[in-house]
Amino acid sequence: MKIKISRDALNEAIQDVSKAISNRTTIQILNGIKFEAGAEGVMLTASDAEISIQSFIPAEKDGNTVVAVEQPGSVVFPAKFFAEIVRKLPTEEIDIEIKQNFIAWIRSGMAEIQIVGVDPEEYPLLPQIEKNRAISIASDLLKTMIRQTSFAVAVTETSPILTGVLWTLDGDRLKLTACDRLRMASREAGIHNEHQERFHDIVIPGKSLNELAKLLPDQNSLVDIYVADNQVMFKIDTVSFYTRILDGTYPDMSKLIPQSFQTELTVNTKKLTDAIDRAYSLSREEKTNIVKLSLQDDRTIEISSSSSELGKVTEHLDVHQRSGENITVSFNSRYMLDALKAIDSDFVRIGFRGATQPIFIKPEDHSNMVHIIMPYRTAG
Amino acid sequence: MKIKISRDALNEAIQDVSKAISNRTTIQILNGIKFEAGAEGVMLTASDAEISIQSFIPAEKDGNTVVAVEQPGSVVFPAKFFAEIVRKLPTEEIDIEIKQNFIAWIRSGMAEIQIVGVDPEEYPLLPQIEKNRAISIASDLLKTMIRQTSFAVAVTETSPILTGVLWTLDGDRLKLTACDRLRMASREAGIHNEHQERFHDIVIPGKSLNELAKLLPDQNSLVDIYVADNQVMFKIDTVSFYTRILDGTYPDMSKLIPQSFQTELTVNTKKLTDAIDRAYSLSREEKTNIVKLSLQDDRTIEISSSSSELGKVTEHLDVHQRSGENITVSFNSRYMLDALKAIDSDFVRIGFRGATQPIFIKPEDHSNMVHIIMPYRTAG
Repeated sequence: MKIKISRDALNEAIQDVSKAISNRTTIQILNGIKFEAGAEGVMLTASDAEISIQSFIPAEKDGNTVVAVEQPGSVVFPAKFFAEIVRKLPTEEIDIEIKQNFIAWIRSGMAEIQIVGVDPEEYPLLPQIEKNRAISIASDLLKTMIRQTSFAVAVTETSPILTGVLWTLDGDRLKLTACDRLRMASREAGIHNEHQERFHDIVIPGKSLNELAKLLPDQNSLVDIYVADNQVMFKIDTVSFYTRILDGTYPDMSKLIPQSFQTELTVNTKKLTDAIDRAYSLSREEKTNIVKLSLQDDRTIEISSSSSELGKVTEHLDVHQRSGENITVSFNSRYMLDALKAIDSDFVRIGFRGATQPIFIKPEDHSNMVHIIMPYRTAG
Repeated sequence: MKIKISRDALNEAIQDVSKAISNRTTIQILNGIKFEAGAEGVMLTASDAEISIQSFIPAEKDGNTVVAVEQPGSVVFPAKFFAEIVRKLPTEEIDIEIKQNFIAWIRSGMAEIQIVGVDPEEYPLLPQIEKNRAISIASDLLKTMIRQTSFAVAVTETSPILTGVLWTLDGDRLKLTACDRLRMASREAGIHNEHQERFHDIVIPGKSLNELAKLLPDQNSLVDIYVADNQVMFKIDTVSFYTRILDGTYPDMSKLIPQSFQTELTVNTKKLTDAIDRAYSLSREEKTNIVKLSLQDDRTIEISSSSSELGKVTEHLDVHQRSGENITVSFNSRYMLDALKAIDSDFVRIGFRGATQPIFIKPEDHSNMVHIIMPYRTAG
């Protein structure tokens, strides 16, 4: 292999794929980045067995040469050292050459680096995914949907399926759902589905989606999604992100959401968030996170938390609209804050079916999102 | 106690004193912030026994009322919860009132917080320091001097005195020196010393100075320094920073610096730093940090590092000036980088007295600073 390549383009691609490098892998070869130079450009690959990321550096961009391949070839570089040294190289044009035994010579200005690489044949192959089964979604929308749901996945492995986010596609409606035994978050949105693709019950690890979100640009570019038997691939411009799909049956949540409530109220999202946040500060010190919400007249709710050691936080908040009976419930304020922070609307609607029944939180102005929190069964 | 106070002013003072709060203190009362309201304003105090910080909030600032004291009083607040809740309060004007048993009522808009405080009589008294023994130094200069020396203090406690920075005052010259057994950094500068104050061998813990540096503004305001028997106090506007002085005798470094060298060379600071930084990347992976510098002709030096597992970094660098014999030395590249990063001059002068003798690094354009590094005794 013998190439000239742009340091900045290489650096950017390394940053992309490095998100798949795990510090804890026991598979030696996965501490490396696979580097493949061909006529059309350079492909970088990194993986931690759970996710894999590829980033392609095309030979030309906007009419400028980015990679000039004199002799194609490939090698696996030690990821951490390779990433660090490329970032520190003194010139924008760098030469990379492999002479023998996968030892690469990198030249940049007066710096000359030899890196002991590994035979690329040892690197595991990525899953084959058919390239024609695509649905498309705007990058910023997908990023938002992940942010609004993935926080609610289970963190313990008692029910492995709940560590994932359920993806359901129905016509051109995509729905993401995450839950553990104590809360649920769901968000749906319209997407491009030209090929009338349809799938049910694809469960993607929450951790993988959080890594994916870091790669998603905030601009309104399209992400293509390809689904195979046990893998899904997200294609963002020149970057491909692979993750496995979780095995198992996801619990049916559709019947959880009732048509009517015993009590319903609408409040300003930011004011409610801030009030609960102050009560949370106290409840967290107690390590319980217990906060109480009490609706006692037509116009105000009281948010409170108390601790024998630290003191008490009491907040009063105007209710924008309300219907139904007075109620007092206690809940995990961390869960409530997570739900409220996922809601971008100015007002939020909260539905109660009784002090020991699930609490439903929705934006006031649309029905694309629902959050559910189980209350604590404490006295009054 | 009953006062009205500006949330932002209180918040700022809490941020200042919180730097003295340690998560690991075993003294219960030191988890608190002492809060004293008097006619002139509010004084906050925090301490971790090693350092103490006081921040004073004057009743008035620029003609505006910042604190209105209806009834003076004092209390100790739990630091973490108090800091967090003040930061999150909804209104700029807040009321604080202590009714009984040191329980404080804080009111801000619709939020009402009760905080269980502690009797301020339980809080340890700060050392008394005579207020008329002051020397003064520009805040940004002091910050720079700390940054240029404190990295070189010993981190292990085998010689406790070496965990501190030696301060020497001679007329209007202040000199800071730090060393462990393998390197030394020293910096001196002219200061205001109207009262002809003079002290020798004051050794201040490096950790304390690093905390002090975080409080020092970058602007050119004056810091007053008061020295007592076993304490020193830095006064920065309304903030007072106390730290203890280390007991013991600091080794005499003055004879270490020779008048002549076997080899001397001048190189571009940034180019040398970058070249050593790349070699460091490799040497760090080997966990040795060994980098070799070799001067073999009149015009270039070679910087190199090699690892049987990872590869090799070889750098060539133009020498600006040189005198004396050819030389090859190996050194700890982390130490060399620390020294080079402390030097703000464009060119750096390096003096050698042989492959196993200390290496001297100085800025090319002034003699206010010297760094010394012991070489590794490796073959060639």
